[in-house]
Amino acid sequence: MNLSKILNVILLVLVMVLAFLLFTKEGPRENGQRSSTARTTLDVIHERTSIREYTKRKVSREDLETILRAGMAAPSAMNKQPWQFMVIEDPKVLAKIGDQLATSKMVREAPVAILVCGDLQKAGEGWLEQYWIQDCSAASQNILLAITELGLGGVWTSIYPAESRLSFITGLLDLPEHIIPLNVIPLGYPAKPVPPKDKWKPGNVHWHGW
Amino acid sequence: MNLSKILNVILLVLVMVLAFLLFTKEGPRENGQRSSTARTTLDVIHERTSIREYTKRKVSREDLETILRAGMAAPSAMNKQPWQFMVIEDPKVLAKIGDQLATSKMVREAPVAILVCGDLQKAGEGWLEQYWIQDCSAASQNILLAITELGLGGVWTSIYPAESRLSFITGLLDLPEHIIPLNVIPLGYPAKPVPPKDKWKPGNVHWHGW
Repeated sequence: MNLSKILNVILLVLVMVLAFLLFTKEGPRENGQRSSTARTTLDVIHERTSIREYTKRKVSREDLETILRAGMAAPSAMNKQPWQFMVIEDPKVLAKIGDQLATSKMVREAPVAILVCGDLQKAGEGWLEQYWIQDCSAASQNILLAITELGLGGVWTSIYPAESRLSFITGLLDLPEHIIPLNVIPLGYPAKPVPPKDKWKPGNVHWHGW
Repeated sequence: MNLSKILNVILLVLVMVLAFLLFTKEGPRENGQRSSTARTTLDVIHERTSIREYTKRKVSREDLETILRAGMAAPSAMNKQPWQFMVIEDPKVLAKIGDQLATSKMVREAPVAILVCGDLQKAGEGWLEQYWIQDCSAASQNILLAITELGLGGVWTSIYPAESRLSFITGLLDLPEHIIPLNVIPLGYPAKPVPPKDKWKPGNVHWHGW
């Protein structure tokens, strides 16, 4: 075996190693994939839209926890974190909500819904108590973005401050007095793609005073 | 030149081509980069924290517009989009806000601040009007996430519903009667890294009713 042949073998091995590395090296993934390395936060913010129809596929416990972790990562006034989250998977309960609340009728067909609640026992005193609305809204937005990020879809359907919706949900779910449901977010795998709205209005920005 | 030598040359060229492809193929970028292909939305949601100290470096008009676009991509009740945004870059105005509002004192040293306002002329009628608070809170959270995504830092400092803060800001900025400032978000390049809080509390999740 001469030098040239040895070199051949070495180069052949090198080609195989490099080819292997090339094909296993992870590039940016395609958009629309469940995993989202190719989508920036700005992409997801603009991709998020109200998804009102879902397939029957269940949302995994792992995904639900990921979504709820995102919710709890929201900022809150004086870091009170005045929130509680209820996961509703019982089809009978989902159907009751969808049937009773006209603005939440898509809850009926969703595999799961998250009830975002303010917890007045954790909120501030006096007028500071009202910050739970802003804090839970920020948490809700994080939840919607996490849903979008995971390839799922959902929609913010409001409860607070509609008196009739509040009393219905409180009664149905037997919520304690200090728990105020802000909204219910049905979610699942989107039944069809929904193009997001373009809501950019330069006139909403005041660069040099009013 | 025998066959073995020709094979050598072919293999050598192949090695060079594969090595070139391997090194130019774009993998996920390092975290912490300004560009964020490597950070998912979930990363950014968890990375976001209140940044209260900034360098003197100005925030570009382009970045501000990106941030405001994210704000306007938030959902809103009945798609009313009841918001307006004021960009405050005048150091004298920033100083006045920082001096007057104890909870917004970091505005003084920020290169810019965004005032997130509800626009009651765009809001619903009667009790539906109140949704501007939730809608503008969702927009604020989008703004904070966009700030984080761009390598900037900011903090939600609230105005509404504190009467004294509302009247001060309304007077200082000459806001029309139908414009209600929800918060002021100072932002800039972070003066130092701030580790985010871990606010995950499994007890906040109610999987099987209350």
